[in-house]
Amino acid sequence: MTTMEILRAARAAWPALQDADTAKKNAALDAMAAALLAQEAEILAANAADMEAAKGRISPVMLDRLRLTPERVAGMAEGIRQLIALPDPVGAVVTRTVRPNGLVIEKTRVAMGVIAIIYESRPNVTSDAAALALKAGSACVLRGGKEAFRSANAIVSAMQKGLERVGLPAALVQLVQDTTRQSATELMTAVGLVDLLIPRGGAGLIRTCTENARVPCIQTGTGICHVYVDAAADQDMALDIIDNAKTSRPSVCNAEEVLLVHEAVAAEFLPKLRRRLVDDRAAKGLTPVELRLDARAAEIIPGTPAGERDFDTEFLDYILAVAVVKDADAAIRHIAAHSTGHSEAVVSRDPAVLERFARSVDSAAVYLNCSTRFTDGGEFGLGCEMGISTQKLHARGPMGLEELTTCKYVVKGDGQVR
Amino acid sequence: MTTMEILRAARAAWPALQDADTAKKNAALDAMAAALLAQEAEILAANAADMEAAKGRISPVMLDRLRLTPERVAGMAEGIRQLIALPDPVGAVVTRTVRPNGLVIEKTRVAMGVIAIIYESRPNVTSDAAALALKAGSACVLRGGKEAFRSANAIVSAMQKGLERVGLPAALVQLVQDTTRQSATELMTAVGLVDLLIPRGGAGLIRTCTENARVPCIQTGTGICHVYVDAAADQDMALDIIDNAKTSRPSVCNAEEVLLVHEAVAAEFLPKLRRRLVDDRAAKGLTPVELRLDARAAEIIPGTPAGERDFDTEFLDYILAVAVVKDADAAIRHIAAHSTGHSEAVVSRDPAVLERFARSVDSAAVYLNCSTRFTDGGEFGLGCEMGISTQKLHARGPMGLEELTTCKYVVKGDGQVR
Repeated sequence: MTTMEILRAARAAWPALQDADTAKKNAALDAMAAALLAQEAEILAANAADMEAAKGRISPVMLDRLRLTPERVAGMAEGIRQLIALPDPVGAVVTRTVRPNGLVIEKTRVAMGVIAIIYESRPNVTSDAAALALKAGSACVLRGGKEAFRSANAIVSAMQKGLERVGLPAALVQLVQDTTRQSATELMTAVGLVDLLIPRGGAGLIRTCTENARVPCIQTGTGICHVYVDAAADQDMALDIIDNAKTSRPSVCNAEEVLLVHEAVAAEFLPKLRRRLVDDRAAKGLTPVELRLDARAAEIIPGTPAGERDFDTEFLDYILAVAVVKDADAAIRHIAAHSTGHSEAVVSRDPAVLERFARSVDSAAVYLNCSTRFTDGGEFGLGCEMGISTQKLHARGPMGLEELTTCKYVVKGDGQVR
Repeated sequence: MTTMEILRAARAAWPALQDADTAKKNAALDAMAAALLAQEAEILAANAADMEAAKGRISPVMLDRLRLTPERVAGMAEGIRQLIALPDPVGAVVTRTVRPNGLVIEKTRVAMGVIAIIYESRPNVTSDAAALALKAGSACVLRGGKEAFRSANAIVSAMQKGLERVGLPAALVQLVQDTTRQSATELMTAVGLVDLLIPRGGAGLIRTCTENARVPCIQTGTGICHVYVDAAADQDMALDIIDNAKTSRPSVCNAEEVLLVHEAVAAEFLPKLRRRLVDDRAAKGLTPVELRLDARAAEIIPGTPAGERDFDTEFLDYILAVAVVKDADAAIRHIAAHSTGHSEAVVSRDPAVLERFARSVDSAAVYLNCSTRFTDGGEFGLGCEMGISTQKLHARGPMGLEELTTCKYVVKGDGQVR
């Protein structure tokens, strides 16, 4: 089928899901998980073909992301099953107003309709995204990366078997069959057929969506996250937070990329920082962090001089840009000028500084004396997530089930006119 | 100033508003209202110049929309003052979660930042929109129609005086000085400078925004609203609702454009409809409604045969497209195919039909036994509105103060790392 035919089939299938109650949606999730396990051999064979074709064409890190094993397939099935326990967001009455004329106005949470997701190579995103959309009451059109095309097709085919087993249309979960740019563009411009487009991937994909999307779109992911160490910081706590934010998983969007240090403590703090992130790590055989220093930081410790773009780059690597700032206001201004609006942290014992930072920093998540790494659906207690929104419209921060729905007003009357 | 300079000035001014508490924002609204009254002579003189320049170039209806009088200026000031009593949406903690690791996660309502509004000729939108944005904590960049340019400048200039009187920057409310297409395009593409773009106007403006906007945008307004009269309808109630929805104010977006009638009652109901909307109105000297009939309706009553586009047109006039449908499901399918997702009503005494219509019709507002004309911020008890969103992302239906804000997560810890 062409991408447009797939979208039309999704729209046509959606009313069946709109009519499905929570029990039916949960039965579908259970059947989808069971089908993934039942089709394990087919999925692994498809993945082996993907791996063979990709070998030498993508990096070892990407190749590892692409690889499926029986354990990973079991993990995907388990991920789907975990959604069964989460509350169904659809149908909740968010607000209820009785007007003087007797009208009862209920703002009711309802499904979006058709959600399109453009993602890159990890095959498990296929099942995660489809299951989240389904629980949120929406049909889902997936457009994955070409490296994982065979794997994704096998996964979708299994999930469709699960849907059919409970009497729901297979077209509620579909994979776009064209992995060229053309299909991404078609999804971005299918006004009236796509209710929500979620790009999950690197800065390039997000930019392409911002520039080309005509359908409602939520930007996810890019994180140039800052930690500001105040004059009144507990410096040992600051070191722990920075170490965690930078080195626990440098390749993710909630990892720290920039450190700002108050000038009053820079001479004392920066040597400790260097010891922790460079010397101690090297001594333990861990990758030392490359420090890219602004002129003032470079007067205090050795490191790479920061280049022009170093305070505007999502390194996703063992690299940290470091600058010395005059005070908390200067840190807030620096963040306003350079942040992607994802996650920023302050370390301070001064309540006025914490309050000012929390109020003035205009990002999805603002951390007071804790690590930026907590920006995550699981860590926030949402149970799951479709990505981290860095935009202000609709959803900001981790997008759980509720963020994948919309509301409509149901107004009940008895002949009222205006 | 160029449009880009105006946007940068708005961004630079915003932190002062971010720091302002409710009392200060209310004082600003009061001062803005007072300044409008104090500058009445200047505003009326500017409006007289606009009227003079527009005469003969725009329709009498449009000319009347453009006209300001002392009463209308007083109404604008009163509109601003009414916002003072409304609750401040900014600062509310929407959800608060304490995690097992001790983190306190507060989802907090915060201001958007810079809201840009593109609107057409009515000068009162200038003060309405600016005051709403201000109460919602955002700087506001207005781009009005060229016919009202002098009036809007005089209004903005007065509001700026009010802002300065309470010590807030004038740049929080600004009018774009270029009324060519160029400035609209600049607003639509100012990524990073505009947090929310709201087009308020006709279908053409909305379409241009959908096609060209790179910044987050909320579509407002276009309404092809349906009323479905079921076999189990109270027919007198149906006549009252249709009469109200069609004729009380045909030029607005929540007016009915299409009537769908169940085939079992069409032969009985349509002659009553014709009597009510055509004959009775003509007898009273009111404009009769032109009925555009599908083939089945035309077999029952006289009227204009409906053309190909009549079920996809926002007439905004004394015109009603009428079709006979097989049942409620057929009505729901017709609405899914032709509606703009604004407001739809069902008239029925059958609870199953009401429930099915409420569940399956995918529009911002669904009315059970009442008129579509209630889709309005005031009627919904929001106290005010910036327009009616017909999209599913962020805000759907009337947009009050809360819909003009966003949320961020403030996470409070004591050294937690992941």
